[in-house]
Amino acid sequence: MATYLRRVDDTIVALATPQGVGAIAVIRLSGKEAIQMANRVFFGKNLEVQASHTIHFGTIRDGDRIIDEVLVSLFVAPHSFTKENVVEISTHGSSYIVNQVLRLLVRQGARPAEPGEFTQRAFLNGQFDLAQAEAVADLIHSDSETSHQAALHQMRGGFSSDIRELREKLIHFASMIELELDFTEEDVEFASRDDLRLLVEKLLRVVEQLISSFDLGNVIKNGVPTVIAGKPNAGKSTLLNALLNEEKALVSDIAGTTRDSIEDEITLGGVVFRFIDTAGLRETTDTIEAMGVSRTREKMKSASLILYLFDLGDTDLVEINRDLNKLENIGVPFIKVANKLDKGNPQFITILKEAHPDTLFISAGKKENLEELKEKILEQVNLDKFRTGNTVVTNIRHFDSLTRTRESLLDVLGGLDQEVSNDFLAMDIRRSLHYLGEITGEITTDDLLANIFSKFCIGK
Amino acid sequence: MATYLRRVDDTIVALATPQGVGAIAVIRLSGKEAIQMANRVFFGKNLEVQASHTIHFGTIRDGDRIIDEVLVSLFVAPHSFTKENVVEISTHGSSYIVNQVLRLLVRQGARPAEPGEFTQRAFLNGQFDLAQAEAVADLIHSDSETSHQAALHQMRGGFSSDIRELREKLIHFASMIELELDFTEEDVEFASRDDLRLLVEKLLRVVEQLISSFDLGNVIKNGVPTVIAGKPNAGKSTLLNALLNEEKALVSDIAGTTRDSIEDEITLGGVVFRFIDTAGLRETTDTIEAMGVSRTREKMKSASLILYLFDLGDTDLVEINRDLNKLENIGVPFIKVANKLDKGNPQFITILKEAHPDTLFISAGKKENLEELKEKILEQVNLDKFRTGNTVVTNIRHFDSLTRTRESLLDVLGGLDQEVSNDFLAMDIRRSLHYLGEITGEITTDDLLANIFSKFCIGK
Repeated sequence: MATYLRRVDDTIVALATPQGVGAIAVIRLSGKEAIQMANRVFFGKNLEVQASHTIHFGTIRDGDRIIDEVLVSLFVAPHSFTKENVVEISTHGSSYIVNQVLRLLVRQGARPAEPGEFTQRAFLNGQFDLAQAEAVADLIHSDSETSHQAALHQMRGGFSSDIRELREKLIHFASMIELELDFTEEDVEFASRDDLRLLVEKLLRVVEQLISSFDLGNVIKNGVPTVIAGKPNAGKSTLLNALLNEEKALVSDIAGTTRDSIEDEITLGGVVFRFIDTAGLRETTDTIEAMGVSRTREKMKSASLILYLFDLGDTDLVEINRDLNKLENIGVPFIKVANKLDKGNPQFITILKEAHPDTLFISAGKKENLEELKEKILEQVNLDKFRTGNTVVTNIRHFDSLTRTRESLLDVLGGLDQEVSNDFLAMDIRRSLHYLGEITGEITTDDLLANIFSKFCIGK
Repeated sequence: MATYLRRVDDTIVALATPQGVGAIAVIRLSGKEAIQMANRVFFGKNLEVQASHTIHFGTIRDGDRIIDEVLVSLFVAPHSFTKENVVEISTHGSSYIVNQVLRLLVRQGARPAEPGEFTQRAFLNGQFDLAQAEAVADLIHSDSETSHQAALHQMRGGFSSDIRELREKLIHFASMIELELDFTEEDVEFASRDDLRLLVEKLLRVVEQLISSFDLGNVIKNGVPTVIAGKPNAGKSTLLNALLNEEKALVSDIAGTTRDSIEDEITLGGVVFRFIDTAGLRETTDTIEAMGVSRTREKMKSASLILYLFDLGDTDLVEINRDLNKLENIGVPFIKVANKLDKGNPQFITILKEAHPDTLFISAGKKENLEELKEKILEQVNLDKFRTGNTVVTNIRHFDSLTRTRESLLDVLGGLDQEVSNDFLAMDIRRSLHYLGEITGEITTDDLLANIFSKFCIGK
């Protein structure tokens, strides 16, 4: 893995489209010799003398044997995704053909690409920074409006430029302070300590804002872990199915592109809510009763939202109050949902409304008031920050680096307060610079890169 | 379905690459307004004034909202697969993005394409004939060297041009004979009956050669149905696994392109052998004994090859002769395979070699002599005809039309022998022309086309 950085001179090849039968498949080559290699197996025009961004029809041949009729797209360095020469070969979508073409290109000297290696080359060649490169993978895996927008925003720059600008200013201060070290006997001050404090405070505000956005970012990327809690006959599974079915009916997918429906996930307002299967959600165990059991309790604690569901015709106020008391101890936000509205005694409903005015009355079976429930669920996610275009951190690696950055920036401030010596100050600033640089990739190690890009799919 | 032919003026859209997560996905538009529609959602250069076969970078937007950064490939009519304007949009490979872009284009007036509709347009616009269009689907589904070569050969022309040429000559005769009908009283002969006979005989030779190639074509396309017959302890399952594993070991697939291994299929010399699960192949029932049972007998009869396997240490000559007698009654070619070579009594082996010199001695468990067995299996398929580049009919629809063509050509010859009246002769010739035309698509109905193309995948 550590050899990654040392062999960017060779030419890599991979299938860029998903595996399986389709109308077409695209095989991608990138590297110095990409065009020559393609040209050696392509029969048609001479690819080596064609302009960038042009497409050419011809056949791919292994000696005399024709493997396929193809379209070849040319991207001449640096006008490509990787900033290297790139050739995309569009073949008929048969895995037999794809395999044959890949083998042929490997015999021409191309190396099968590692996962994410095209994007890694794009990063190494300065197409974009590390945070942007990471967003490419998030974009490919995005499955809701918010996760898609967050990834796209990050890929197109996101917080990268803000961080880079502030980091450069901080580098300037670090240099000045380090310069002072050379003149310690003369008591000069190249870097104004007041200006430094202002910069660090500004940087801290940015970093803290990004850190605080991670809760939302995590929800956007991974969905809101949600639990429906209630007695076996409360209608938990009916409610979940009603929510899932409504979603399916809304999604009028175009034929041939239907996504695999993921059980127990619903998308509301562009946010995914992931329903956790606690004992009792799908089974007949009583979740509320089972809360005494530590495992169920842990699962409920790990949720970000609990829907407390009870049967209006089969629950009294004492029981409800006892359940709510337990739920409050869990410490996770919850919504009180009274189900089977039609079975409710009007007198009891009046009492309930007085005791718990924030109760939502629905009928899961008859699909009544589900829209209001959905709105209430969505209210739990504060999307305003996101809608107004603010940057949201969705990547746990960035969150970690930002947290370390904050710590070292606070150390810098502390050092300024205590008027520590220049070498200590410079050290804390360098530490901040290091963690900031890790986010955008000014500071990287082979291991870090290998770790990041190995999570990509092959061909990207 | 019957409206297909009447609406070729609209613009169709579909995902052309397989569904699923990949580096890129390609969405294809074809039709008069393909470029305008793409241009309305694309931000970058003005696509309407760009040259054919060029690629353009930009973003796809829904109003202000950016959906993705994409590469757009332009093919200006008639220089495209469908001979219409074609736009291919290469997006990041997320099904969320693909869905968004498809919806956006449908809102611009594009219609989601029916299965095979792009290829159908290519056919209707004269890019190729029907037999070639059908070969596109075969090519996509080809999974072995021979099925791939047969499909590619057919797509690139195959028997189409031969048939077309002979058919045109026959049309000429039909016209001449029909012309004679206008001059019945004058006893003229515009068409030489001798020349007609020569042409029909030539056509018959071609048609009969094609008909006789279908056995091989069927094997190439669908695999050779094969049965391993033997007693429970003969080592049937060990042999099958040994053959399957050797194949797997041979297939050193490039990472990321591994095909799903299909249980009970092996590829030898580019031909697929499909092992039929008769009772006894995977289970402990005795196949030979079970041959009395009519269902097992039927299955064995439906095979093209039987491997008769027996345990050298546990079978005597009487039993073998009895089994072989039964197998001969089945009427399917079989190979005699003596297993567990190491357990065989040398004396018995000598006797066996004398009684059945064509017996192959192997050890499935120790993988001995498996290569010889494979060679013997492959000998059962006569690939010489195929290797020498002769056309092979793989499509049952073509086989049907050819068979009907032969019948009507024989009627024409019979008519010539019996000197039937011109109107009968003309009718028989027209019937031959009809069936020949069905193959290459000069004669089609909406139903026929709908039936053919509905078997394609969407996006092709």
